[in-house]
Amino acid sequence: MLHRASMLSALLCCSAVAFAAEVAKPKPSTMAEVLAASRPSDWRALEPENTLYVELTTGRVVIELAPSFAPAHVANVKALAREKYYDGLAVVRVQDNYVVQWADPDAEKPELARKVQHAKQSLAAEFDRKLDPSLPFTRLPDGDIYAPEVGFSSGFPVARDPKTGKMWLVHCYGMVGSGRDTAVDSGGGTELYVVIGQAPRHLDRNVTLLGRVVSGMELLSSLPRGTGQLGFYTKPEQRLAIKAVRVAADLAPDERTALEVLRTEIPLFQDLIESRRNRREEWFHLPAGHIELCAVPIPVRPASTR
Amino acid sequence: MLHRASMLSALLCCSAVAFAAEVAKPKPSTMAEVLAASRPSDWRALEPENTLYVELTTGRVVIELAPSFAPAHVANVKALAREKYYDGLAVVRVQDNYVVQWADPDAEKPELARKVQHAKQSLAAEFDRKLDPSLPFTRLPDGDIYAPEVGFSSGFPVARDPKTGKMWLVHCYGMVGSGRDTAVDSGGGTELYVVIGQAPRHLDRNVTLLGRVVSGMELLSSLPRGTGQLGFYTKPEQRLAIKAVRVAADLAPDERTALEVLRTEIPLFQDLIESRRNRREEWFHLPAGHIELCAVPIPVRPASTR
Repeated sequence: MLHRASMLSALLCCSAVAFAAEVAKPKPSTMAEVLAASRPSDWRALEPENTLYVELTTGRVVIELAPSFAPAHVANVKALAREKYYDGLAVVRVQDNYVVQWADPDAEKPELARKVQHAKQSLAAEFDRKLDPSLPFTRLPDGDIYAPEVGFSSGFPVARDPKTGKMWLVHCYGMVGSGRDTAVDSGGGTELYVVIGQAPRHLDRNVTLLGRVVSGMELLSSLPRGTGQLGFYTKPEQRLAIKAVRVAADLAPDERTALEVLRTEIPLFQDLIESRRNRREEWFHLPAGHIELCAVPIPVRPASTR
Repeated sequence: MLHRASMLSALLCCSAVAFAAEVAKPKPSTMAEVLAASRPSDWRALEPENTLYVELTTGRVVIELAPSFAPAHVANVKALAREKYYDGLAVVRVQDNYVVQWADPDAEKPELARKVQHAKQSLAAEFDRKLDPSLPFTRLPDGDIYAPEVGFSSGFPVARDPKTGKMWLVHCYGMVGSGRDTAVDSGGGTELYVVIGQAPRHLDRNVTLLGRVVSGMELLSSLPRGTGQLGFYTKPEQRLAIKAVRVAADLAPDERTALEVLRTEIPLFQDLIESRRNRREEWFHLPAGHIELCAVPIPVRPASTR
């Protein structure tokens, strides 16, 4: 029964490739089996120039940046990191089931606020971008409540609207965005937030997303919740210090966290989606038959696994 | 433009009531405005007999039980609480973006495991129930990836399938379920879990849900993540003690947490959904036009607000 559901999904899904694989050999059934069947070439190393390290007293959070979707914001966040803008700032907001945010606690006090030196204080919004068919897109055929098309592009959850000719990053768990004030062009990366709860899809196309946490999420998601409005901490001593933010390329290779991300453009990633859409672990009684975009894991592993 | 989107949604949505309200007076536009417009009768007090308190060293977690969906499990959890089965047990598992679970850490050691006295050790599964049209159901017209119909029943997120004639509780953030082993009838409430991340909808109809956390979620969601397999803590000292679990009815009235939940069967709840579907706060640039079941908040407030 489970196996039949699997074949049906593979057919509904998309590709002759998936069907050929089905015929050629038994399909791996659980995520563990799919990953065990992966080859080294199914994984890609993070690019040091597009990887950000947020150094906390409790450890390192690793963010993969998305220059294909927010080129100006990614460039500015790297410029801010390189002028050490973030060093010594703090996590100022932890709102349950929503976001963790770090910023200059004195940002609203002109005499105390940290000055941006070479980077830009604010930028035009990058809420979406032109739909470029040459960008990788692994469509998820299960549908979506918010967008006409959803899927994955080089390890990021994305949505597309062929009618408007736009595509954009989606607010799934672990996605990183640039906070802004009411004006749409008031953000620039000086305040960054990370999603720590149910996907806040109402933020899609309202704020610029620029990356995804690929390691260290638990350092952010387990922080004490702020008791002020919107989850802001009410006392300075509640804040968690940001020791430093660095571009991985600026660190010596042995100081980097060597990680690999599963490619999302390969047939094996389709197998992985199917292994999560219809669980075949013995514990499961009823396979769901469908899966939401933000419920699909994008696996990351230490590079030494090779 | 926002207002036009609002009217369209109200029309698509369902009810002459919503449309009449639109014509009769300006619709409240933000959630804050909707709640400010609520009357005392729009709220219901928690029933002490169907409210569970989980007492932690850090505070109290309040759970509203769902006897309409899991009558045997709710009765058994109350019986377990009343024989003090849970007192002195511990949070043994915190898996990031998934669940917090409390249980007997010695459950697998027959000589040490706590014995169930008058309650039952295990029960038949209550993964779903017969679709009873007399049960309240406020349908969410926005659709769902996993189920033919979704909506709210007396403050709980639910799904229905008219074809199979079944309805069931849905795994949204804060929902409480009864852990089980591989056998579907191996759970009974001795181990309970709470969803602390993206809705794990693949668990729907695979495990018995029996309630929802209505206060104190942050005490669970901010716990350190376990580093063992499935997020289990690897050392006893990492566990958080469960001081006691009590049925609210068994406490003196002044020891109870007096809370009220917004009714989900009233026109005002439709206004609330619309206020979250299409945000009208000044900050928002683009209203989403749609909302997922698990993104709809079910407001709770101190009863003293009256």
